[in-house]
Parts: sequence; structure tokens; C-alpha cells
Amino acid sequence: MSTPGSATASRLVSELGERGLIERIRQRLPPPPSDLIVGPGDDAAVIAPERGALEVLTTDALVEGVHFDRRFSSPADIGHKALAVNVSDIAAMGGTARIALLSFMLPDSTTVDAVDGMLDGLLGLAAGLKVALAGGNITRSPGPLVIDVTVMGFAKPRKVLTRSAGSPGDLLYVSGTIGAAAAGLDWLRANASGRAEPPTPALSECVSRHRRPEPRTRLGSALGRMRAASACMDLSDGLADAVHQIAEASGAGARIDSAKLPLHPGAVEWFSGRDVDPVERCIRGGDDYELLFSVPPRRRNRLRGVFHVIGGLSLTPIGELTGNPTIELVRDGAATPLPPGFSHF
Amino acid sequence: MSTPGSATASRLVSELGERGLIERIRQRLPPPPSDLIVGPGDDAAVIAPERGALEVLTTDALVEGVHFDRRFSSPADIGHKALAVNVSDIAAMGGTARIALLSFMLPDSTTVDAVDGMLDGLLGLAAGLKVALAGGNITRSPGPLVIDVTVMGFAKPRKVLTRSAGSPGDLLYVSGTIGAAAAGLDWLRANASGRAEPPTPALSECVSRHRRPEPRTRLGSALGRMRAASACMDLSDGLADAVHQIAEASGAGARIDSAKLPLHPGAVEWFSGRDVDPVERCIRGGDDYELLFSVPPRRRNRLRGVFHVIGGLSLTPIGELTGNPTIELVRDGAATPLPPGFSHF
Repeated sequence: MSTPGSATASRLVSELGERGLIERIRQRLPPPPSDLIVGPGDDAAVIAPERGALEVLTTDALVEGVHFDRRFSSPADIGHKALAVNVSDIAAMGGTARIALLSFMLPDSTTVDAVDGMLDGLLGLAAGLKVALAGGNITRSPGPLVIDVTVMGFAKPRKVLTRSAGSPGDLLYVSGTIGAAAAGLDWLRANASGRAEPPTPALSECVSRHRRPEPRTRLGSALGRMRAASACMDLSDGLADAVHQIAEASGAGARIDSAKLPLHPGAVEWFSGRDVDPVERCIRGGDDYELLFSVPPRRRNRLRGVFHVIGGLSLTPIGELTGNPTIELVRDGAATPLPPGFSHF
Repeated sequence: MSTPGSATASRLVSELGERGLIERIRQRLPPPPSDLIVGPGDDAAVIAPERGALEVLTTDALVEGVHFDRRFSSPADIGHKALAVNVSDIAAMGGTARIALLSFMLPDSTTVDAVDGMLDGLLGLAAGLKVALAGGNITRSPGPLVIDVTVMGFAKPRKVLTRSAGSPGDLLYVSGTIGAAAAGLDWLRANASGRAEPPTPALSECVSRHRRPEPRTRLGSALGRMRAASACMDLSDGLADAVHQIAEASGAGARIDSAKLPLHPGAVEWFSGRDVDPVERCIRGGDDYELLFSVPPRRRNRLRGVFHVIGGLSLTPIGELTGNPTIELVRDGAATPLPPGFSHF
């Protein structure tokens, strides 16, 4: 961890150069796991696959000004999130993340300190998840700071979860709570200049959720391994989006019961005080990295085994996949079309 | 292929949206190979590994204004190159590329036509190499257009090539010719406004090499498979850089014989006419995607087998790794330090 105010604090990456930066990153890496045959510093990384497993591969970029705002997130928050969003995708497939590649695009104004901070966040989460940084790429950019991460993981054959494997009659479950990240970001924007602390612990939790999402790794791999879920995806673009995606990919409709939605208390508090509809904001807000998954009625008892391994995380039934062509939200007894989710364009 | 001047030619990606763009890409993909279990459209791709093989994984980004200039390269050139530079890294490890992920960062001013063009180039090369586009990510960006590609391939255990496996006494070989891409780019810059055609076929070849590098896939996998090379890397940042990297990683020195360097005739012609030293420009110029590799004297006969499978590609011995600490270029009988290579910072 670098010390603010130290001699390197305002040193620019351009002074260190590409080679110097790569060397600085390599020196911070823990000893490589035995399945990482060739790590950073060669033309490519070489990994021994897990015996009898399939490979799960995903990539997701965070772009400054689109996915993060440096007024609201520290470099360590950004590094954490860049890895977390990718690990979440692996978890949503029922896989376990193992290897990450890091692709940095750095404006000339980037300080070495900022890079160190991003690595603090990324490597801290990686260590906890036993994910090894195996390589990547660094380039300067005339544009915004971008951190593009690729994660590879493993999953057992026939235990992979996709969006399309749901059927009418399957129950829809969501993990944890929804809307926290959207409320946290909304609060940060409203207080952009004030730098005040969130007024309540619940809202403070929302801000943390926006800054440092926790991928549901144990839940995802358990849902796959125990074959408890049919379809699954993460809530990167919000619950409403995920319901649409799973229903459409599965060739089904969906009915969500508004009264059952596990809205985060801090989000309800914040949005109610802002005179906007908490339900709509919580289901449309992106950056919740909870999982939405469908469970065929005959497999419901398998959820018990899943509960055993996920600690205190809640799993809430919020509706079901249907044989109708509609995707609807039932609220106070009336059904309306479920709004679309968050879009990056 | 879209038609310039058609209704979609100036349509912006923002009108199509993220989902529309993804659907547009999916519709263009050929039927997936049997080892791609889950392709684009899910949270992650799922791939069946090649039996008994290791996985080789790399990522490399092209940033507008740093790695390409849209005055000099068509969208199809950019798409081709984004995949080629990654496949080249896999080849340099002795691997065979199989799967690509595509991460797009698109400014709002990007036209659907430009995206179609980049896909033309990328998918055209992918089809020829039997690489399947398995997934990726699309996001808008307030900055330059970025195309960040991840490629996964396979290599047999004990047949992986690294930078560090060279030894003093190993001969250094380079494939093809060097300096063509640097000369091509230099010519394009000098003629930026003129839009003239290159005056000679040799120079025309240089411009093509800058726009559409050909990764040395057959050479790389043959060098690994037949265990002909000790160390290997590609010339993404130029020959001088590669010699430094292999020598330093192998704990050796190096001596390069200037007279033996396979300078591209078009590069010699162009740089000589510009009154700059062709040797220096050709060894420092980046974007040659040839391979530099070291061959222990006792394995030299294995190169015959390699020649059989690489078609007409030339392999030129240009020097050797030494037991001295110096990395030098011998020219007209005098040894001088080999200059450093191209740096992206």
C-alpha cells in the first residue's frame, strides 16, 4: 500500500514506463498456484486445466465516466469492482474463478499511486477468492482510465448454469437484497460536493455495495454443483433486466410478485425520502451482483443443501416463469409489464 | 458486409443499443465448433478443454490514437489486427488459438457501419484460423474507440515456449522480414493528406503489413510441437525489444549480426530515401508480428521438420545468445549496444 504524500504519490505512470509498471505489478504478486505454469511477463499465460472440468471465460470492462466516478470510488474500490464483476459472471454460470488477466488503459495523468491503489483492491479480492493474476496488458490511452478484466474459471460438465434452461412453472429466486447499489450511487451523486457521511447505517451499506460489490461465488458454484437451479444469471444490469433475459432465453414468460421483492432497507429509506418509487428504482437499478435463478418445483428440496454452504445469505422466491408470453410485475393485485433494465447505451 | 451509402451507413451504435449490437454480432457468427459449449449471450462462455493440453491465455488492446489511426486503417483492418496481435502471442508460446472474447469500448459517434467493418476483419481472420468468437462485452465510452481482445488456445505440456528458456550458445532466428510495418506506417504518415498509392510494390507490401499483420501460427505451433526452439517471442514491439527480452529473461547476453538481418526490401527503399538508417528503423520498429526464437545447436536439425510445415516463410539465423552480460549489434566489424525497442509509454 502506498502512502499518500510520499515521494511516489504524484509520480506519473509515464515516468515509470510500461516495463517498469509491469515489474511493479509482478513484485506484488503472491507465489503462483501450482496450476499456473507460466505467469505474467511472457507473451501469454499458461494454465493447467482442472481435470474433468469445463472452462468458463468472461470479460468485462470498467470505463471512467461510465462505470465509475473517481469522486465516489477510491482506486482500491475500482480495482476490487473490476475483478468482482467478472467473478460474478463466472459464479452465475455455476463456475469457480481461478485466473484473471488485467488490461489497463491509462491516461498520461494517471499516478503510480492510483495504479497501486487499484492493485490493492484487485489483488485483495483475488487473494480472498484464490484467483491468480496470470497476465494482461498495459497501454497508455488518450481517453478515460479503463480497467478491463478477463476471468477464467472451471465448472463440471452438466453442472453449468445458463440463462436459457428455465421452464414454465419454475420458481424464481433472488439472493440477498436488491437496489442497494443504485441507492448508494444516487446518494453519492446527491452529495457530490458535500462529502457528508451517509446519515444511517443502512444507507452506508448501500454506498459500500456500490463501491465494493460482493460476487456470490459460493452460491453460484453450489447451485451448479448441486443442480438446484435450472437457469441463472447475475444482476449486473438490475433485477428487471435479469428477469427479461432469463424468461426470453428460456422461451417463457414471467410473473414477479412485488410484495415479495427483498428491497434493501437503505434503498427504501433513501428512495422514499426522494419521492421516487422504491420498487421501480430497486428493480431497474444496475450493479446489484446478486444472482437470479429458476428452480423447478421438484428440485426445491435441493435448495436446503445450498443454504448450508452460503452462510447467512438469504434466498427469496419472488415469482415464477410462466407459459404466457408476458413478463409482468404484480403489484397490489394488478399486473403491469415489468419495466426494462438498465442499459449501458 | 454493409454497403456504404446504405440507410445504416451513418446510423450510430447508440440508436441500436447494447442488446441490438450484441444480437447483430450473434447473427453473423458461423455455427459454433463442438468444443464451444456455451457461446455469446450468456454471462460467460463455456469451453471444453483439449484433452491432455494446457491452456494458453492472452489479452491485448488496440486504442485509437495509440495503436491505430482511422485515416490509415479501415475498420476491417482494425478488426483483423485486434485478433492478429493476440493470436501472435499464442503462437509465440507454441500454442494454437481456439477461442476469442471481444471487448468493445465505443464512443457515441461510432457508426454501426464501423462496427460491421471491424467484425468483417475480425471474423474473416477468425474463420481462417478456426478461432471461435465465444463472447465479450460492449460498452460506450467517452474516450477513443478501443477493441480489447482475449484469446485462449492450447499447447501440449512440455511443448510450451517461453522467453526464459534460452541458453548461451543458442542460435537466434527470426522469421520472415523485419521493418515492413514501421516503414508502412511511416509512409502513411508522410502521405497523410495526399492519399497517394505507395509508389512501389515493395512499399505497398509494407503498408499492408502495418494494416493486416499475419500471425505466424504454423511456425509457432511447429516450433513448440517439434521442440525445435528453446525460447520464443513475437516481434510486437520490434526485434531489438525481443532480443533484449529473451536475453534478459534467459539470463544471457546476445550478439546480433547486422549483415544477416532480413530487412524488408520496401523498408530499406523507404528509409534510405528518407535519409534515416534502415537498420536502426527496422530493428526498433514495432508491429512486426514475426517470431524471434533461440535454437540450441544440437536441435538445429529439427528445424528441417519445421520448414516442411511453414510453407515459404523464411527463417534467418541473425546471431546468438552469449555468456556475456552485453546485448550487442555487430555492424561493419564493430560491436555497439543493441538499442532498446519500441515502448508504448
